[in-house]
Amino acid sequence: MLLHQQTWIDVEQYLKKSTGIVIPIGSTEQHGPNGLIGTDAICAEVVGKGIGEAADALVAPTISVGMAQHHLGFAGSMTLRPTTLIAVVRDTVASLARHGFTRFYFINGHGGNIATVTAAFSEIYAETSLHPAGNQPVIKCKLRNWWESSKVKAISSVLYGGSEGSHATPSEVSLTWYAYPEAVRKMTMDPPVAPTGTFTDSADYRRNFPDGRIGSNPGLSSREAGERLYKAAVQDCADDYKAFVAAA
Amino acid sequence: MLLHQQTWIDVEQYLKKSTGIVIPIGSTEQHGPNGLIGTDAICAEVVGKGIGEAADALVAPTISVGMAQHHLGFAGSMTLRPTTLIAVVRDTVASLARHGFTRFYFINGHGGNIATVTAAFSEIYAETSLHPAGNQPVIKCKLRNWWESSKVKAISSVLYGGSEGSHATPSEVSLTWYAYPEAVRKMTMDPPVAPTGTFTDSADYRRNFPDGRIGSNPGLSSREAGERLYKAAVQDCADDYKAFVAAA
Amino acid sequence: MLLHQQTWIDVEQYLKKSTGIVIPIGSTEQHGPNGLIGTDAICAEVVGKGIGEAADALVAPTISVGMAQHHLGFAGSMTLRPTTLIAVVRDTVASLARHGFTRFYFINGHGGNIATVTAAFSEIYAETSLHPAGNQPVIKCKLRNWWESSKVKAISSVLYGGSEGSHATPSEVSLTWYAYPEAVRKMTMDPPVAPTGTFTDSADYRRNFPDGRIGSNPGLSSREAGERLYKAAVQDCADDYKAFVAAA
Amino acid sequence: MLLHQQTWIDVEQYLKKSTGIVIPIGSTEQHGPNGLIGTDAICAEVVGKGIGEAADALVAPTISVGMAQHHLGFAGSMTLRPTTLIAVVRDTVASLARHGFTRFYFINGHGGNIATVTAAFSEIYAETSLHPAGNQPVIKCKLRNWWESSKVKAISSVLYGGSEGSHATPSEVSLTWYAYPEAVRKMTMDPPVAPTGTFTDSADYRRNFPDGRIGSNPGLSSREAGERLYKAAVQDCADDYKAFVAAA
Amino acid sequence: MLLHQQTWIDVEQYLKKSTGIVIPIGSTEQHGPNGLIGTDAICAEVVGKGIGEAADALVAPTISVGMAQHHLGFAGSMTLRPTTLIAVVRDTVASLARHGFTRFYFINGHGGNIATVTAAFSEIYAETSLHPAGNQPVIKCKLRNWWESSKVKAISSVLYGGSEGSHATPSEVSLTWYAYPEAVRKMTMDPPVAPTGTFTDSADYRRNFPDGRIGSNPGLSSREAGERLYKAAVQDCADDYKAFVAAA
Amino acid sequence: MLLHQQTWIDVEQYLKKSTGIVIPIGSTEQHGPNGLIGTDAICAEVVGKGIGEAADALVAPTISVGMAQHHLGFAGSMTLRPTTLIAVVRDTVASLARHGFTRFYFINGHGGNIATVTAAFSEIYAETSLHPAGNQPVIKCKLRNWWESSKVKAISSVLYGGSEGSHATPSEVSLTWYAYPEAVRKMTMDPPVAPTGTFTDSADYRRNFPDGRIGSNPGLSSREAGERLYKAAVQDCADDYKAFVAAA
Repeated sequence: MLLHQQTWIDVEQYLKKSTGIVIPIGSTEQHGPNGLIGTDAICAEVVGKGIGEAADALVAPTISVGMAQHHLGFAGSMTLRPTTLIAVVRDTVASLARHGFTRFYFINGHGGNIATVTAAFSEIYAETSLHPAGNQPVIKCKLRNWWESSKVKAISSVLYGGSEGSHATPSEVSLTWYAYPEAVRKMTMDPPVAPTGTFTDSADYRRNFPDGRIGSNPGLSSREAGERLYKAAVQDCADDYKAFVAAA
Repeated sequence: MLLHQQTWIDVEQYLKKSTGIVIPIGSTEQHGPNGLIGTDAICAEVVGKGIGEAADALVAPTISVGMAQHHLGFAGSMTLRPTTLIAVVRDTVASLARHGFTRFYFINGHGGNIATVTAAFSEIYAETSLHPAGNQPVIKCKLRNWWESSKVKAISSVLYGGSEGSHATPSEVSLTWYAYPEAVRKMTMDPPVAPTGTFTDSADYRRNFPDGRIGSNPGLSSREAGERLYKAAVQDCADDYKAFVAAA
Repeated sequence: MLLHQQTWIDVEQYLKKSTGIVIPIGSTEQHGPNGLIGTDAICAEVVGKGIGEAADALVAPTISVGMAQHHLGFAGSMTLRPTTLIAVVRDTVASLARHGFTRFYFINGHGGNIATVTAAFSEIYAETSLHPAGNQPVIKCKLRNWWESSKVKAISSVLYGGSEGSHATPSEVSLTWYAYPEAVRKMTMDPPVAPTGTFTDSADYRRNFPDGRIGSNPGLSSREAGERLYKAAVQDCADDYKAFVAAA
Repeated sequence: MLLHQQTWIDVEQYLKKSTGIVIPIGSTEQHGPNGLIGTDAICAEVVGKGIGEAADALVAPTISVGMAQHHLGFAGSMTLRPTTLIAVVRDTVASLARHGFTRFYFINGHGGNIATVTAAFSEIYAETSLHPAGNQPVIKCKLRNWWESSKVKAISSVLYGGSEGSHATPSEVSLTWYAYPEAVRKMTMDPPVAPTGTFTDSADYRRNFPDGRIGSNPGLSSREAGERLYKAAVQDCADDYKAFVAAA
Repeated sequence: MLLHQQTWIDVEQYLKKSTGIVIPIGSTEQHGPNGLIGTDAICAEVVGKGIGEAADALVAPTISVGMAQHHLGFAGSMTLRPTTLIAVVRDTVASLARHGFTRFYFINGHGGNIATVTAAFSEIYAETSLHPAGNQPVIKCKLRNWWESSKVKAISSVLYGGSEGSHATPSEVSLTWYAYPEAVRKMTMDPPVAPTGTFTDSADYRRNFPDGRIGSNPGLSSREAGERLYKAAVQDCADDYKAFVAAA
Repeated sequence: MLLHQQTWIDVEQYLKKSTGIVIPIGSTEQHGPNGLIGTDAICAEVVGKGIGEAADALVAPTISVGMAQHHLGFAGSMTLRPTTLIAVVRDTVASLARHGFTRFYFINGHGGNIATVTAAFSEIYAETSLHPAGNQPVIKCKLRNWWESSKVKAISSVLYGGSEGSHATPSEVSLTWYAYPEAVRKMTMDPPVAPTGTFTDSADYRRNFPDGRIGSNPGLSSREAGERLYKAAVQDCADDYKAFVAAA
């Protein structure tokens, strides 16, 4: 159930049976020579929709641009400053809490979002922690990375092992190919596995990772793998969502 | 050409022939008894994609949540505060300008965004106006409402006349039905044409417009009308986009 | 009744019969070869005072500097960034609401303020829309451009027609001459009617409009016209103010 | 020379001979039983204009609303939050610096502004202190309280001694009466001299100072005193302004 | 009683007998040829601890970095922008008010903090002044400069007279030497007494005061003087603190 | 070498041989029945000083209050909002970068700081990523948790195993006892090992963890353990610091 595809009356009905909502959050940034700039948003969105179907949950529109300052050395990458993203998350939660939603499940497609979104949750909680009188009803936020599902990790470690890497991974590229068959671009990477390391800003990143990949070989991507990963992620995350919403 | 569906190398190529980009911006808010909560984002997105195809232009991901504080009395509606949206627009333009984009064409689906996005453009321009040394290269931003195309207005005035109204209009509902056939919900409105008037905050809005519509009868919506409106909007806006990018 | 000329006890008395207030907002920016830098603030202030007299309304001090980043290419022009002006409007309304004022009528002298002040109203309303418990008493804000009075438009279109333009208009210059006879500077403009067009930042503006005017011939200004325009604006706006305050 | 009464071409001429500008800053707040709410803005404005005449200096529009949160317990008082006022001062200076102004002389009418305006100067200086490359040309800001002129203090101490107090003083009330003869309201205060003490927020202030005065007897005000104080303030401040502008 | 050395249960007990707390605030900035960069923080901290002992008061952790933009021309100096420091003071007070503290006694070691911290108090008070319903319980903040104790001034004027100056004073240097004997650095200053004057940003400061001192001769510092000054400051400030907490 | 104990001339000398600096960051928050409220700041500070000695590095003053909104249900706990802490970290780095420091090593004592400080680094990097011209010299920031040293983990797992927990751990309490012998409070905890789980705001935290501990038994703390942990942490972190500063 996509929020965008409902009327307000539908949402009123939904709130009688559940106060949980799934919020996909991704990023718009380079993903190496054959990965889509939308990879992280696409992964979050398709897994989010899958959770919605599996758990009968409402799914908010995807936050497509995340915190990706380090990718700005590659054309097409976009970022929100951390303080901007904090404001976006805060307004998102406040808007939905206004209607009675209390469980906010952010399904995340981008490692670079974790710190800022976690900080955003603390910014939200700080208001009721500092002014406890207003703490009604109790809201809870959770950030879940789709790729940290144990089922997903089992598949990707068998399929890719040391070629999985941490950016522009064959797993995420495969997942986008499953979602968008027209996106498939078979390529041989050179070197096969990209270097690993750390980075600070976008100049430093581009210096260290000249084609955008970190430690990965997305040349190994395939639609078949994408389908398996998708199903695994949805199963794990839907279970996790249900437990999150059911908890006190 | 959707930015999300490109690689960074594709974008590098694109920038050699054009520095323009289309950025759909909509809203996530109630649209009356049979209109989708995503109506404004959907309209901006589909017209934006159409412009991309007609003008061979790159299309950024849709800004799905806009300034819609007045709709928060209806379940599912979301808003960014104006100051948050200003920050989002500022970071969006700054990110893309980093790569050499200079013409930012915001195709808009929501009247409530106009003031804030216009203010955001001024916030951006103020930096170079106050510190003119940094004004290189020259960037230009434009906000275009898809429904203000002359071709669109010609169609909607013939089809709906005094039933078009200003919120949850049959034109925008028709356009979403064209985009999403499964969204069609034929209904008889009561009263047929909604009241008109002004509003301030969400309580005031709900008091004045009990089912969410303003001055409209979206019971008259149809997929056929949606198709005609879509084609008209894309034609006008693509021409406008091309002129915008071509101008000095 | 100017707020500045009252004691606090006078204001306490006033609030027993009315909770409306007029707030002039202008700008400090170039107005072509013979227009005063204070034109927009002067127009808002004198019309505002006129409304105060005609409608027995309290008039707050003028917000003299508005959003005018595009004029910074001409010496003496000043601007508040949009986010600054939003904060100013927010604090202005909050201060006065503290005393029981509920109807805030901003009489505006500058087109460049419209977007930002409208966004500021939404920023204010967003608080009660997001936290409806606090929505007492109900406040309403209105922005009114003095030149959009129908009586004013009737006069200016007869007097100036295609020479009215949109910046440094003979109408606004005439109005300032009526207010400040010592400001009269009869001049022949070259070209008589300035070019029209669009603009972005201050460099772009100055490039397109070298002497500051847009589409106008303020060489046609006169004190007599100013007097007629003043009376027309006050009549229309005072009626509008009274209706605004009287409405629920 | 009021900035508002100049054209942009006049200002261009002015800048060839001086880069100094006088900026009156006041407040809009209660001033006891017979003092005007505009007292502080009026005093700053009339002294500022006087400096302009005496020193052939340009005078910017008055910042009429200052930091006066503690007066909000009395009807009609207005405040900007300190952070808002900092932004206003920052944008004011940045706008004028854009044209080549380098010496900003804030003539102040309100003790409550001192801390915040001083902090605003530091906010401005912090930019060049943190990023010294950009420190060209060198700008300097000064805040000057009109009542701290030695000539003014000599007069007020002789005239009012222990009845001068620190808020709603007979000196400032006299000065406004000199400026606006119609404002004269002779009254006997009860008690003649108001209590003194400290305050925090507006509730605390009203509790401690029930009619708004602090330590003063504005019943002693007179137009004659106002005229003497005006002349003294202008003389001292004009000298001070000239020295400020002349210094390296 | 240092807050850092207590358990939360200790603080709960403390709050049963007092709702006052001492908060040292200093700065991290150059203090001339033989003064420590931590001078202002050290002075505030040691006097703060002394007050804690003398008045049986809880002492919060020292705010070590203050507003010192003008010192950034000298290596090792640090600053918070005024708006950052306002946020820090606001969160500090809000956190402690949450537990029931109502009297916040900031013992200050740096003149450059005065304006910003005073503005921060107004920022805090403005919330309850604008929204009086929330004004419970009543909180009060006070900023006290340790060196303005009358006992301290008596000692320093006898010991140093015209060599005391206003930055890197022998009094403050002596106090740090008393606190940290290993910091003693006997030096002969050249010139013995530093120049006096004004300053704006860090470049201006360094130009005017080449070794960092203003009007002082810290070559006269001694541990013995430091001990006397410490005792005097603690006595006066502890009395002042007790009066502050005892007042309604 | 503590920055606070240096003169500015010392720092100038230091910068000739190194551009690295250690910045301890902790928190001020409850640490269970026998842990100090200052535990996290104390741990960061003493380990930071140890690194300074072992690596001949300069050590900045400790940021004593961190992001600890979830602890505000326990008396004495303090927090900065995430956006405030981001501003503090940004100003800290900007101040020191002004003098030529380029390697910022934040030694951290509090898990709750990780997300916000990481976001702060991205906020800093975003400036040069968005405006690459200004990226000179290259600065790098690193956050290091003292307890994640492999040597520390080896000791704590042997000593405490399943009683270590994640808040108010016997390791951190031991370390503070080593630093402050007078802080030792031997106690038997009830239950011996505290519950584990998740938390959101301060009300939720206190509900789940009634005495403040999470999963730990700080009744097992000892000065001897503290000494071993201190030495292990300093050794590992000093090596890490040296490698960080040495890297390109």
